[in-house]
Amino acid sequence: MTRPVVGIIMGSQSDWPTMREAAELLDALGVSYETRIVSAHRTPDRLWDYGKTAVQRGLQAIIAGAGGAAHLPGMMASKTRVPVIGVPVQTKALSGVDSLYSIVQMPRGYPVATMAIGAAGAANAGLMAAGILALQDADLAARLDQWRADLSASIPEAPEND
Amino acid sequence: MTRPVVGIIMGSQSDWPTMREAAELLDALGVSYETRIVSAHRTPDRLWDYGKTAVQRGLQAIIAGAGGAAHLPGMMASKTRVPVIGVPVQTKALSGVDSLYSIVQMPRGYPVATMAIGAAGAANAGLMAAGILALQDADLAARLDQWRADLSASIPEAPEND
Amino acid sequence: MTRPVVGIIMGSQSDWPTMREAAELLDALGVSYETRIVSAHRTPDRLWDYGKTAVQRGLQAIIAGAGGAAHLPGMMASKTRVPVIGVPVQTKALSGVDSLYSIVQMPRGYPVATMAIGAAGAANAGLMAAGILALQDADLAARLDQWRADLSASIPEAPEND
Amino acid sequence: MTRPVVGIIMGSQSDWPTMREAAELLDALGVSYETRIVSAHRTPDRLWDYGKTAVQRGLQAIIAGAGGAAHLPGMMASKTRVPVIGVPVQTKALSGVDSLYSIVQMPRGYPVATMAIGAAGAANAGLMAAGILALQDADLAARLDQWRADLSASIPEAPEND
Amino acid sequence: MTRPVVGIIMGSQSDWPTMREAAELLDALGVSYETRIVSAHRTPDRLWDYGKTAVQRGLQAIIAGAGGAAHLPGMMASKTRVPVIGVPVQTKALSGVDSLYSIVQMPRGYPVATMAIGAAGAANAGLMAAGILALQDADLAARLDQWRADLSASIPEAPEND
Amino acid sequence: MTRPVVGIIMGSQSDWPTMREAAELLDALGVSYETRIVSAHRTPDRLWDYGKTAVQRGLQAIIAGAGGAAHLPGMMASKTRVPVIGVPVQTKALSGVDSLYSIVQMPRGYPVATMAIGAAGAANAGLMAAGILALQDADLAARLDQWRADLSASIPEAPEND
Amino acid sequence: MTRPVVGIIMGSQSDWPTMREAAELLDALGVSYETRIVSAHRTPDRLWDYGKTAVQRGLQAIIAGAGGAAHLPGMMASKTRVPVIGVPVQTKALSGVDSLYSIVQMPRGYPVATMAIGAAGAANAGLMAAGILALQDADLAARLDQWRADLSASIPEAPEND
Amino acid sequence: MTRPVVGIIMGSQSDWPTMREAAELLDALGVSYETRIVSAHRTPDRLWDYGKTAVQRGLQAIIAGAGGAAHLPGMMASKTRVPVIGVPVQTKALSGVDSLYSIVQMPRGYPVATMAIGAAGAANAGLMAAGILALQDADLAARLDQWRADLSASIPEAPEND
Repeated sequence: MTRPVVGIIMGSQSDWPTMREAAELLDALGVSYETRIVSAHRTPDRLWDYGKTAVQRGLQAIIAGAGGAAHLPGMMASKTRVPVIGVPVQTKALSGVDSLYSIVQMPRGYPVATMAIGAAGAANAGLMAAGILALQDADLAARLDQWRADLSASIPEAPEND
Repeated sequence: MTRPVVGIIMGSQSDWPTMREAAELLDALGVSYETRIVSAHRTPDRLWDYGKTAVQRGLQAIIAGAGGAAHLPGMMASKTRVPVIGVPVQTKALSGVDSLYSIVQMPRGYPVATMAIGAAGAANAGLMAAGILALQDADLAARLDQWRADLSASIPEAPEND
Repeated sequence: MTRPVVGIIMGSQSDWPTMREAAELLDALGVSYETRIVSAHRTPDRLWDYGKTAVQRGLQAIIAGAGGAAHLPGMMASKTRVPVIGVPVQTKALSGVDSLYSIVQMPRGYPVATMAIGAAGAANAGLMAAGILALQDADLAARLDQWRADLSASIPEAPEND
Repeated sequence: MTRPVVGIIMGSQSDWPTMREAAELLDALGVSYETRIVSAHRTPDRLWDYGKTAVQRGLQAIIAGAGGAAHLPGMMASKTRVPVIGVPVQTKALSGVDSLYSIVQMPRGYPVATMAIGAAGAANAGLMAAGILALQDADLAARLDQWRADLSASIPEAPEND
Repeated sequence: MTRPVVGIIMGSQSDWPTMREAAELLDALGVSYETRIVSAHRTPDRLWDYGKTAVQRGLQAIIAGAGGAAHLPGMMASKTRVPVIGVPVQTKALSGVDSLYSIVQMPRGYPVATMAIGAAGAANAGLMAAGILALQDADLAARLDQWRADLSASIPEAPEND
Repeated sequence: MTRPVVGIIMGSQSDWPTMREAAELLDALGVSYETRIVSAHRTPDRLWDYGKTAVQRGLQAIIAGAGGAAHLPGMMASKTRVPVIGVPVQTKALSGVDSLYSIVQMPRGYPVATMAIGAAGAANAGLMAAGILALQDADLAARLDQWRADLSASIPEAPEND
Repeated sequence: MTRPVVGIIMGSQSDWPTMREAAELLDALGVSYETRIVSAHRTPDRLWDYGKTAVQRGLQAIIAGAGGAAHLPGMMASKTRVPVIGVPVQTKALSGVDSLYSIVQMPRGYPVATMAIGAAGAANAGLMAAGILALQDADLAARLDQWRADLSASIPEAPEND
Repeated sequence: MTRPVVGIIMGSQSDWPTMREAAELLDALGVSYETRIVSAHRTPDRLWDYGKTAVQRGLQAIIAGAGGAAHLPGMMASKTRVPVIGVPVQTKALSGVDSLYSIVQMPRGYPVATMAIGAAGAANAGLMAAGILALQDADLAARLDQWRADLSASIPEAPEND
């Protein structure tokens, strides 16, 4: 079995419909990953452990999705130098602007690579992780190039009148 | 020397001009406190320790100020059941709306008593802490009542034409 | 019958679906409370009376929910030193940003412990009230610690693929 | 001495630089007024009294300026049927958006005639009060018509190159 | 037949579900009114005529509802000194924040008495018009006082558990 | 003397520091223009006349700048089919978001070609007018192409360390 | 067959329900057009080619719709001096405010004539294109004048009570 | 001379005071880089070339700063699979919210690793690039670990009373 090189973590089960887009992208690109629920507030010790062991476990990127006062990505960035990619999950009252601000406005020292709000952002988190891994994996680079070429080729000339 | 019953913590020295308003209020009301720099991202272990020992050290309220992706109040609320009062520090680009959303939009389970953005919020954090302590301290309650009465009495009848 | 130590007040019946979350939390933690409709604009005298008698009636915290130009929490904070916890109710046009700003941006002198917009905020208001009461009630403190431990323990390792 | 027909009230002395624009407009139009500091939170009883006696004192309009969680105009509208004109005072962190939302988003039953944020809004509050009074005062109507005609006539044909 | 003393105008038929609340309020208070569609952009000459004849036709208040780049209330305020009450109609993309800003941010000289976004604002526009008329109509004043007293009396003591 | 083909209009003299950027651009491109102060609220009849005669006077584009409840561009678009280019002028409290919403959110039927907030928007309004005129003026098209080429050529390879 | 004089381009098929409003308006006014899918990110070379050949192909206006980080209109404006009209497509999380800011806030040198968010904006884009073309096409000018007159004439006197 | 592994690009010289923070961070960590002005709108062909040659030139990360309708990071992400890190530069009217939305809200397929608005974001872009490079460079990993340790160690226990 392949050791996961990407960790997909999220604050709760309710984030999964968003975050599965990241998993599906990594599946499509042949990148091994694990999925975990790590809540910054409910399971801070799990977050601590996850962050502290990330390097030695060989993780090359951590994709973290969270909504509202979304502390998970930023706290993970505090605990490890493994690149953290943040996905702001859409919220009911503030539509994910709260999630976005809480994730992107990190202070000097602890970057979080923030993606778009919601499912498109989660898919892009998978692509960003793949792009990072492709820097040292020529096969993955070729697959990513092909994925991008396919996406471009899929665009029709003109809109269909529905 | 009096053991502090309120902890005033902040993410960095640059928050002090805001947070000193909380300290001055507590001074005025005769409440003992300590001030600490505890950064959620730069000193997460210090945050952990502070939160874990808060009950046994006898803290009755923790006032936490932070700006931007202001994780300090929320992470402290995750580590202790001592009431956490959050002060959103004003920021350069987003004026503290980022701080406000990051502090107030906490998920179910971990409340942060959020105050107004900036110095007025910090002063009110001191008053909120005093109000909590006054529930079990009749002398402090009397001093707080007096402070409130003095504030009301200080309002002139009409504006002065400057 | 137990005398209520927490008052849950709201501007109108339409706030109840949100505010019941506070009541349910207090039920779960064994904290006695009362529920009242107190409208800042429609029943200002009721608000006056409620605030003026809060201390002598033994209330230890007042949870106040309101939406739009949400004046209830702030006006209650003006009338009593009992800690007021504010819950911004989600609104139709502005999603509760109006409620949030009206509640949290209180001037120096009259803090309102503001929670998140909507149901999560109401639940957290219950927890904040319990946290305040637990400072002087060891049994409640133990129940609150247990509630928090249960919440943490309820988090699965990984998301389920639905 | 003329009995004031308009009351200009504000939450604190710091609102005067904004609210004086209302006074100056009323001076220019020959409308009698009084100025008072009435704080919703610091002097709620003064607010109560002011509202309760407004009709019998012959006030025809109340101009109320406030900033932040600006409760003064809305609470005054709760206490009297005399038309209340609200002026959102600009604030440091949120530029008066907080004041605007707190004043304009009043619930069914208690209208506040909200003006623009800041000094232009205060001047317009004076004009709105004059417009209300002009409905029953032909002389004032003529002066107001003249003021409006003068304003129109003051506009040059083309901008001057400065 | 009674001559209308209030004009309720709106930009299009689609504003009627909102603006009918103003009409219903005036019906309840026995105030005569007319309803007209006056579009600032599609029927500017109608707007001109309406504004220019408002005084001589005896209108005492004009309630104007509009959405988006809501120019109707402000342009009407430019054409007549009769008090204009603006109702920001909720919009699809921006929820009426666009309507609110376009209506409330009027320049010095041309006040629009802005109400809350949507139906509550329309109802309050009716009440504001009634409040203005009540200044010179003791019977209406009594009816308005009664309406307000009834509203207050309708509030139950406590929320019903639904 | 050349008849102006572009009208640059603005609500007041205070808009000139912004709008002069449009004039300077047109000067640079050799496009004839006139500048006028036309206030939607203070000089509505001037606006009417300007709009009604725009076609016959040979105007090919109207650049309209305004701030706050910026009704000028939209009202002009109501009065003439000559393309109207709107420039949201920056405002004190809301930074021009009010101007932007009031200008861009026009209803179906009356487009305003909205530019960026402030001086860059004014300059671009000049360029947009030139681009429209260049469709039927080969010399101007060549000058505009050259202006664009010069702008591109002016960009250095690398930033200078200041 | 008529050569198209307007290009309607959009980032993806999902923009068509919005952008068809532009097409329908041009149909109604008898303006020839083409529709194309041109994605700034997925088909940048197509964008390049489209922009570079726009002048020689005789396009007189390009209507570009896009949502989110809506780069299509602005990049097209970089590649051609043909007037570009931008339509911000409504988005799920941010309701099209992201699209609006990305389209309207263009730097000096590259104007995009920005329309309202969503379908009304798309329809207005068609009208703006027609207004530009009408400057040099008297027949189209007459049809556009008629279309505008019909729109005005379609407005009933008063709202129907539904 | 070392071949640069990171490209720092920006839309104009005026972005340099912000972007130099990225350069200084890379200097501190011993990472080779180049700085270039690449404007999406003014020099689109330069952007094209930069993107197309990024892989073969051995760039491992591209840091792109831009303000307003900030198209540079997203267009670069369209042209290369090398990870693009976006820095929203603060703007005059909208404080960088426009830059943030234009950079972060990228559609599925083209991620941009978005940082905080302004200088802190630029510094973090340097750290994010270093974190990516450290995955395959043990020496750099050690320097980055040390930098992070030093940052943590630099935090004093308590704020100094200034």
